[in-house]
Amino acid sequence: MRPLQIGLLGMGTVGNGTYQVLQRNKLHIERRLGRILEIKMVADLDIAKARSQVAEYCEVVSDANLVIANPDIDLVIELIGGYGFAFDIVLKAIAAGKHVVTANKALLAVHGSQIFEAARQKGVMIGYEASVAGGIPIIKVLREGLTANRINWVAGIINGTTNFILSQMREKGWSFDQALQQAQSLGYAEADPTFDIQGIDAAHKCSIISAIAFGIALPFESAYIEGISELQAQDIQFATQLGYRIKLLGITKSSPQGIEVRVHPCLISEKSLLANVEGAMNAVMVHADATGTSMYYGKGAGGEPTASAVIADVIDIARWSSVDPGSRIPAMAFQTDDLADTRIMVMDEITSCYYLRIGVADQAGVLASVSSVLAQAGISIDAMIQQPADLVKMQTELIILTHHAQESDMKSAIAKIENLPTVLGSVVRIRKEEFN
Amino acid sequence: MRPLQIGLLGMGTVGNGTYQVLQRNKLHIERRLGRILEIKMVADLDIAKARSQVAEYCEVVSDANLVIANPDIDLVIELIGGYGFAFDIVLKAIAAGKHVVTANKALLAVHGSQIFEAARQKGVMIGYEASVAGGIPIIKVLREGLTANRINWVAGIINGTTNFILSQMREKGWSFDQALQQAQSLGYAEADPTFDIQGIDAAHKCSIISAIAFGIALPFESAYIEGISELQAQDIQFATQLGYRIKLLGITKSSPQGIEVRVHPCLISEKSLLANVEGAMNAVMVHADATGTSMYYGKGAGGEPTASAVIADVIDIARWSSVDPGSRIPAMAFQTDDLADTRIMVMDEITSCYYLRIGVADQAGVLASVSSVLAQAGISIDAMIQQPADLVKMQTELIILTHHAQESDMKSAIAKIENLPTVLGSVVRIRKEEFN
Repeated sequence: MRPLQIGLLGMGTVGNGTYQVLQRNKLHIERRLGRILEIKMVADLDIAKARSQVAEYCEVVSDANLVIANPDIDLVIELIGGYGFAFDIVLKAIAAGKHVVTANKALLAVHGSQIFEAARQKGVMIGYEASVAGGIPIIKVLREGLTANRINWVAGIINGTTNFILSQMREKGWSFDQALQQAQSLGYAEADPTFDIQGIDAAHKCSIISAIAFGIALPFESAYIEGISELQAQDIQFATQLGYRIKLLGITKSSPQGIEVRVHPCLISEKSLLANVEGAMNAVMVHADATGTSMYYGKGAGGEPTASAVIADVIDIARWSSVDPGSRIPAMAFQTDDLADTRIMVMDEITSCYYLRIGVADQAGVLASVSSVLAQAGISIDAMIQQPADLVKMQTELIILTHHAQESDMKSAIAKIENLPTVLGSVVRIRKEEFN
Repeated sequence: MRPLQIGLLGMGTVGNGTYQVLQRNKLHIERRLGRILEIKMVADLDIAKARSQVAEYCEVVSDANLVIANPDIDLVIELIGGYGFAFDIVLKAIAAGKHVVTANKALLAVHGSQIFEAARQKGVMIGYEASVAGGIPIIKVLREGLTANRINWVAGIINGTTNFILSQMREKGWSFDQALQQAQSLGYAEADPTFDIQGIDAAHKCSIISAIAFGIALPFESAYIEGISELQAQDIQFATQLGYRIKLLGITKSSPQGIEVRVHPCLISEKSLLANVEGAMNAVMVHADATGTSMYYGKGAGGEPTASAVIADVIDIARWSSVDPGSRIPAMAFQTDDLADTRIMVMDEITSCYYLRIGVADQAGVLASVSSVLAQAGISIDAMIQQPADLVKMQTELIILTHHAQESDMKSAIAKIENLPTVLGSVVRIRKEEFN
């Protein structure tokens, strides 16, 4: 069989990683696939640099449109990023009848439905394993490995940058700003870290997971998103004292009330495997009706781990391309005409346990008044720390862990607590969940 | 498309689990596959019990040959176990042109090459995801998810029974016999636990992993196998004191010297994720050239977790069955005519760190003589505990952790140590490895 001819768009870290891994493991991959994969064209604005990265027989161009226009190219790997030019070029590749592999979670979370529909009509495939959790084949696991199951929930550490920052804050007692700076100087965070630290990147990935876990349209627009930039070092320390670690989690859950899609910092027991995923590593925990809990752990970013996912998609497509589109695995795991229109729950409806830190005046009856507000809201207390009072300022802090409560009840209880005359400033509230 | 017609052989725990999950999630699976899966016939010696477990329209027979003889059956699920009758019936099913899904690791480890070759000649598929690590889709991960990688090593907790026993020994300070008894009374160990506790079951699974990781023939006959029945409670306690846990691991590694396939108890750092896999859970850690380290964790046994893997295979086969056999994923991950004949290393050649417990007379110069034997063999000491002496018996114990040494050197050093006049009885030796 003739080699599969590939066009690679974007020669950054992942593009270069993909090229290198494909060259290095060419024979190994041929032993598995029984066919050669060949990157025939590469497009990058920096032609000189791209030229220096690839073999002589590989054509290098600056205009990605030239790759699309080449009738010999069977498959395009999009590693440009963003949803401007990348969106345009992916649609053009599909229109030209080329299969597409992409690592672009932002593009898929925002424009995925349109892209998948265009691909379906054209009978081409879209591979996107690399868009979630880098080297961990979590898309394959959810779409194929656990396909016999009804999935109950998925909870994951799916942003390495924030996990690295949180690990550093805990280990070194650093502030968020200090940890962010270190992450930037080590290359774990970008110069503009907004998408990572605000939880947007995790929400892109969580939306993709949610869609393929539950057979719904991509729910990014309805996702609840809360980042880590407001987290304070002392809350991480208090959580540690109570036996918890704080992680930024992407959570999606199915219940009779609807589907939850949310990204926010979360206390989880230090004994759980998820809590022990440190540094820039990723892990995704899945609870399904037949398997119970399973977990998938690995590198979530980086040139070669992401390349592993990109190339696995290319190989799958090489195998499936000769197959009648109707027999292929549907791009979004469920048959297109069988997607559910299950509603996405708003945050007020969800239930969670909570960590509260409340600054109070150091005087008798404070605890009684706080706990009576919680009791009136039907929220019961699981654990509590009262800090030694600051004798100069005559104030102290209460740290409370609650049992399950509905978010809307907790919100109004917090508003009432903040209105108590003995309570100083605003209440710090972090959700606490159990995943095992 | 007409429903895929399935014959299910063996209605034990996994058979019943498979039937139940398929019935319960029928519509859900149809939403994914676009086709109905139907168990049309069930074979079990206990017809009455089987009849009570399945719906009325499902035919129940006692003779599995009747299922094979039914021309409507597209696919046979073999859940009989063992390699006597099961081997025979699997070959018959293949000869009759039926696809086969099996959870039978013993059968595959021992007769896999013959089975896969028969299937290849007949153009039918063999699914065996359920044979290793139950609900964890590790076969799919190795065969498809990580297919772009060259795999360096795989190390796994792939036998739940022994992991449960070891967890209990550590947590409760129990002897092996006490823990085994509890495992039996809770249903985690069988009445005859030989295959589990002697490491044979783990070696079956490790052989399957090794073959698909490295593209070699099934290496079960050359595997090194050491079980846990000789492990003593005190060694688990000393290991804990030194910061380690003892796990029964299946390990397969590729190096320029050849391929290692070994199952034995192993000290691993308590900080590693693998060490924290407790009870009957399974986990498989994979190190590959592009992804680095990744880990896959979940339930390794039980009716429904194993059913999840069985049904995932059925679904894959339903999709692939219309595809030209040459384009399908090769059963053993690599193209049949491209298997390597890499040699399997013998245990004397491998290197490892070691834990040694040495009973010695309580007198001056003992430590010097032991350590000089090790030094002469070029084995350096990493850590040591000397127990307080038993003042009545005038003896004590040295616990030594060594750095890397070759197994053959360690063997002869141990023989020399056991010959020292001040050393009492035989030396306890457990390997210690690092996986991260």
